[in-house]
Amino acid sequence: MSYSVEPAQGGVTAPDGFRSASLHSGIKAKTGALDLAVLAADTVGTAAGLFTTNLAKAAPVLVSQRHLAKSGGRARAVVVNSGCANACTGDDGMANALRMTTETAQAIGCAPEEVLVASTGVIGVGLKMDRVVPGIRGAAAALARDKGAEMARAIMTTDPFPKDHAVVVRTSRGHFHVGGTAKGSGMIEPNMATMLGFLTTDAAVPPALLQRALQESARRTFNAITVDGECSTNDCVFALASGANGVTVDEELYPALQAAFYEVSKALAIGIVRGGEGATKLITISVRHARTLADAMQVAKTIANSPLVKTAVHGADPNWGRIVAAAGRSGVLFDVDRATVRVGGVLLFEQGLPHDDAAPEAATHLKGSEVCIDVDLGAGGDESATVWTCDLSAEYVRINGEYRT
Amino acid sequence: MSYSVEPAQGGVTAPDGFRSASLHSGIKAKTGALDLAVLAADTVGTAAGLFTTNLAKAAPVLVSQRHLAKSGGRARAVVVNSGCANACTGDDGMANALRMTTETAQAIGCAPEEVLVASTGVIGVGLKMDRVVPGIRGAAAALARDKGAEMARAIMTTDPFPKDHAVVVRTSRGHFHVGGTAKGSGMIEPNMATMLGFLTTDAAVPPALLQRALQESARRTFNAITVDGECSTNDCVFALASGANGVTVDEELYPALQAAFYEVSKALAIGIVRGGEGATKLITISVRHARTLADAMQVAKTIANSPLVKTAVHGADPNWGRIVAAAGRSGVLFDVDRATVRVGGVLLFEQGLPHDDAAPEAATHLKGSEVCIDVDLGAGGDESATVWTCDLSAEYVRINGEYRT
Repeated sequence: MSYSVEPAQGGVTAPDGFRSASLHSGIKAKTGALDLAVLAADTVGTAAGLFTTNLAKAAPVLVSQRHLAKSGGRARAVVVNSGCANACTGDDGMANALRMTTETAQAIGCAPEEVLVASTGVIGVGLKMDRVVPGIRGAAAALARDKGAEMARAIMTTDPFPKDHAVVVRTSRGHFHVGGTAKGSGMIEPNMATMLGFLTTDAAVPPALLQRALQESARRTFNAITVDGECSTNDCVFALASGANGVTVDEELYPALQAAFYEVSKALAIGIVRGGEGATKLITISVRHARTLADAMQVAKTIANSPLVKTAVHGADPNWGRIVAAAGRSGVLFDVDRATVRVGGVLLFEQGLPHDDAAPEAATHLKGSEVCIDVDLGAGGDESATVWTCDLSAEYVRINGEYRT
Repeated sequence: MSYSVEPAQGGVTAPDGFRSASLHSGIKAKTGALDLAVLAADTVGTAAGLFTTNLAKAAPVLVSQRHLAKSGGRARAVVVNSGCANACTGDDGMANALRMTTETAQAIGCAPEEVLVASTGVIGVGLKMDRVVPGIRGAAAALARDKGAEMARAIMTTDPFPKDHAVVVRTSRGHFHVGGTAKGSGMIEPNMATMLGFLTTDAAVPPALLQRALQESARRTFNAITVDGECSTNDCVFALASGANGVTVDEELYPALQAAFYEVSKALAIGIVRGGEGATKLITISVRHARTLADAMQVAKTIANSPLVKTAVHGADPNWGRIVAAAGRSGVLFDVDRATVRVGGVLLFEQGLPHDDAAPEAATHLKGSEVCIDVDLGAGGDESATVWTCDLSAEYVRINGEYRT
């Protein structure tokens, strides 16, 4: 089965059969700031979810996990708020997360377990339900096809810009769309899912295939990014399939769905990193010739989370020594003398020795806004991994010394 | 056997039978900046060492490991330079590290394997041996009892102040001293040893007991600190015993030696954290009621390395949510609803819920220069661990965006 995946207009409502609405309910203090969104399929479709591995799971994470299990992977809508994480909020928090789903279900006409819920913002603060409930009713009454971009803004917290993406997949059995939106931008090293992400498709996809496509694409996208090594209490990414355009994804069409999920997830994941707190540069770290994928990922993530590497990149210093030191402490076994380090394609370290004459060329590369670090472990294997991160700036410290997560 | 451990004057040369000398050899560019030190016992004594677990071990680390093995735990002297790590320097680096030991051995009259060597500074740059060799000869000719404080300064790189400490141990079988010096102050999450640390004692200690005392004390001191989660290429800590005062440590006296090593190591380790790059606050993180020591340590270190916790402390924000989130992603299993979090002794989180009325009191504590975070996991075990770290400031970013490690 041959197929093509091409960029398309729009975001989370680009696929047929989805509408959304966003508004300022009053959770955020700033007048007019969007803080609540409802995304709904026209009829009940299938759904999949990935959730934070943090033991301190927020109430909306627990409620969404239960609803997906109870509905057997079917959902009609997602309700999401920003400005309050509804995490560490005890029994009241659970009741409030549940109420968000029942209010949404009642407003659009479906069962509560067919509604998923997500929250993002300050931990340990209760939701103002006297604002959330009217907000949900208002949003449910205003659902429209052309409001996908608003949802991308409504889920933002410290994100400097909204993130959405869509593609159209063309196959000999017809075409379908995949769209999505996501938000960061601190406490980002998802482990199973990113802070918040929402994917949609107008193909019909059985729940098991939808879950598989979400997991497979997240492994090399949402789970391959890090801003600060922090895995949050609220991380989750949902996929909803409306089936509105008549194409049904089976094993034959699965690779096309998977490719489209990867494209959309990658664009959103890189968007999260670009919009990382205080970020001025996108850093792409590729590790090759590892013995296992896990080894490649571990080395790449250790480099990506190294504050010394991140500050060196921030200062445009081609400090390959910090890259070698981070790889060396990653816990993965390799022979340092067989490893090479390239920055912007420029060879800086080989056979245990520096190529300092090349440092000025690498420094020029580092002054740009997109930085590539390539490490060849020479470990005799053929596994590779790519991880995206951002630099560490004084602005990150300022944001997180002042902002209450 | 009862004993007392009391503070004493001096540092690494406080114990009898040790002399040292430090000078500016020309490795550091700044005129007069101390960059080379020799520490020597009057006669050959015993020695122990702990070394970095980083795969990219610097040449002096490899040479010192071999010398300790070859001499069977005996040593006469340590030669150390700052300003150049002699790491990732290939065969020339190995030859230079070895030459530092042979030159020292020749100057003071012992076998080369009885000399240990350590370097700290920029990675990937070769030692200027035309400056190092005359430096070693000059230092060896100037050895004196009263120059311990100079050595504490000679091993500094970005350290804002020198670190040394000494104690006197009194027992019914006589007294002995333990002294030491250490340096940080970036790339600090030692795993087996700190960046550079040197302990001395004038007791006679068999090599196996010396190694055991060093390991036991490092476990809860040097290995319980972190500035930035980075384990360096050059980390090592040495212990030298001169036997100059006639007391021999055996199993009966071992607890006294161990207690003294702990006191000196703890003072030096906390000094490294206080002098961490950009640090403005010392943070003491204690985790209690864990099922295993490893669990307690892992939770404490995850909190200690959390950039969100470190920036919150920097901003005096009693953000217990970030502490709970860091513990929750640490990989250690516990029930969040049974855990408690205290900042400065003030209860902020209990039974899954915040105590926000106490936040102002905790904020006042956080404005000070010494911060205590206590986490009770309530996990049914009785193991505890304490880790020391510092806050993350914009100054850390500035130092590491500009300084070449």
